[in-house]
Amino acid sequence: MAETKYRRAKAVVCRERDKPMTVEEIEVEMPRRGEVMMRLSACGVCHSDLSATNGTIPFPLPLVLGHEGAGVVVAVGEGVTDYVVGDHVLSSFVSMCGKCRYCQTGRPQLCDQAAKAASTLPDGTVRTRDLAGNPLNIFSGCGVMAEYATLHVDNVVKITKDMPLDRAALIGCGVMTGVGAATNTAKVEPGSTAVVFGCGGVGLNAIQGCAIAGAAMIVAVDTSDEKLEMARQFGATHTVNAKAEENLVKTVRKLTGGADYAFECVGMGEIAAQAYGVLGKGGKAVVVGVAAPKDQTTIRTSSLTFEEKTLTGSYFGSARPRQDFPRLIGLYQAKRLKLDELITRTYTIDEAPQAFIDMAEGRNARGVIVFGDQAERTD
Amino acid sequence: MAETKYRRAKAVVCRERDKPMTVEEIEVEMPRRGEVMMRLSACGVCHSDLSATNGTIPFPLPLVLGHEGAGVVVAVGEGVTDYVVGDHVLSSFVSMCGKCRYCQTGRPQLCDQAAKAASTLPDGTVRTRDLAGNPLNIFSGCGVMAEYATLHVDNVVKITKDMPLDRAALIGCGVMTGVGAATNTAKVEPGSTAVVFGCGGVGLNAIQGCAIAGAAMIVAVDTSDEKLEMARQFGATHTVNAKAEENLVKTVRKLTGGADYAFECVGMGEIAAQAYGVLGKGGKAVVVGVAAPKDQTTIRTSSLTFEEKTLTGSYFGSARPRQDFPRLIGLYQAKRLKLDELITRTYTIDEAPQAFIDMAEGRNARGVIVFGDQAERTD
Repeated sequence: MAETKYRRAKAVVCRERDKPMTVEEIEVEMPRRGEVMMRLSACGVCHSDLSATNGTIPFPLPLVLGHEGAGVVVAVGEGVTDYVVGDHVLSSFVSMCGKCRYCQTGRPQLCDQAAKAASTLPDGTVRTRDLAGNPLNIFSGCGVMAEYATLHVDNVVKITKDMPLDRAALIGCGVMTGVGAATNTAKVEPGSTAVVFGCGGVGLNAIQGCAIAGAAMIVAVDTSDEKLEMARQFGATHTVNAKAEENLVKTVRKLTGGADYAFECVGMGEIAAQAYGVLGKGGKAVVVGVAAPKDQTTIRTSSLTFEEKTLTGSYFGSARPRQDFPRLIGLYQAKRLKLDELITRTYTIDEAPQAFIDMAEGRNARGVIVFGDQAERTD
Repeated sequence: MAETKYRRAKAVVCRERDKPMTVEEIEVEMPRRGEVMMRLSACGVCHSDLSATNGTIPFPLPLVLGHEGAGVVVAVGEGVTDYVVGDHVLSSFVSMCGKCRYCQTGRPQLCDQAAKAASTLPDGTVRTRDLAGNPLNIFSGCGVMAEYATLHVDNVVKITKDMPLDRAALIGCGVMTGVGAATNTAKVEPGSTAVVFGCGGVGLNAIQGCAIAGAAMIVAVDTSDEKLEMARQFGATHTVNAKAEENLVKTVRKLTGGADYAFECVGMGEIAAQAYGVLGKGGKAVVVGVAAPKDQTTIRTSSLTFEEKTLTGSYFGSARPRQDFPRLIGLYQAKRLKLDELITRTYTIDEAPQAFIDMAEGRNARGVIVFGDQAERTD
């Protein structure tokens, strides 16, 4: 009977901090009450996965990586009424209990349940173990850098079947985080002026979020001319190479006349302070990048009062995943949202370690792991 | 003809930084096009006036103080259609041009015109001179700590005649700043939890702003038990004496479970960081106190992202004076807004230097200068 209770799957696992992750066979338990099992078709390789392996985001190890997955439901647990086998789904690395004060008030990205069970399913247990029978933690209720994954329905969002799953996967983290920072958190307005610091995967999406929202001037800032060129493709109207600037804030302020919105997409307090610095009166700076735990941001106090400037942050693009994932797919299908252009390279799961090296070295807008034959299967 | 062009008035003038202000006779020019002359009935004594005399808020000297004035229109200039002699008016230390992008978008507190002419009328000139004929700057387009003042109509708000002018005066700065920080800037919601750091004139008004907006738990923090007692009268449900706390942030977090809103009403970056520190997920800290120009606020960067906390500021309570002043009067008349209790002591204009000493020593919630016989006159 053991065969029916667990399914073997290759998975990308972090066993030791600062060491290369391993690709190993694990066992994934069939779904219990309120859960579904996904067969993964694709999973994006995200900087947050890397942050989990180096301690920037503290997770207990060993940990199955992956939180940007797209796939097909292959089994549903008891009591699951909203999903059937064959449904196409995305993972959501924040769970949405629907009951806490944050879910109730339209801020499921801050769901209390997600905070309580960051490395397990919502009930505090996992469905993953290694072949020696030791339980494996999962990244933010997901652990979808694996051929199979069992998730609670609170971490799953159904999508339309006419959407390619490898493109759809990206929506589950990087795209939502960047676009949502502009559209949901900052609420960028048509005709406004925005500055985006950092043009990696998230920064490019913040740029296209600003473009979709109608910003008239979008200034991209990075230290790589190559990334700035990419930024133009995603909607930047101006680019500034930070390396070439003696006083970056002054240059950007001169260019914008004081920005309405600024986005920090790197994860450094110093850059967050620059983002705040380029704002005009009443402007809003949104920190999107994940900074190290002890990193600090310092700003001039009186500018808060006299100029009513705002420093805030965006987690997962302030996502309301059940609304926003389908909307982003709609924008892609309407050719308003770029996804194809984000995928620099695809990898097999065996190539996952290389995918992380390429990401760390800044080679990819986004790398995506595509799951072998299974990607061809539709059922 | 000189007699008709200028009117003699006693005024409180700052001539030298860090020196006691002087009470002297000055000359106030009759209103030019688009201006009105007020005869002052009352003027609040505000910490910002003191800040102008010690350089915390940089103003060119010599400077006629006062920006919290209430009085009666005694003359109108050419082209003025909205005011007639006898109207009761308050001064507004932000001018409201009605035309700039900030005025157009409901943020007159950030009006571009106000920024351009901080120590003069909007056209860059003044109507005030000393008896030797030297021009005197005016505090924020006002300079209403004087028996007469000529203001541009963009700095004047008409109020109902059944409102006592000494009470009304307070609305023009301290009350609007504190109450508006809660109602306009933070948009405090019924049932929410708020923490107010500093229980001086502005802090007490932030507390009553939270109470008016329906906050269920209002925690007042100060180092003076006397001020905390006053805070309870203004609506605080809990008080914490910061002096008695080893870890103030921890104590307040424990009490509130993580606050929805926090208000810094002192003007120190360190306290702004504490206000930010007591917030729960999705919370908003509003800096209201005017900090010294070089003062800084330092916060943990990752808390912005993971918890979507916000650090922002409130200038003049994000006032829309033409709407908000009458509304605050309405709240007073409905016995929802405390004004009488704010006035610790009244002073004659000759006693103004003492009023500043009393304020600096923390003796007053608010001191108010009442202008002699004139206060009795109604025309």
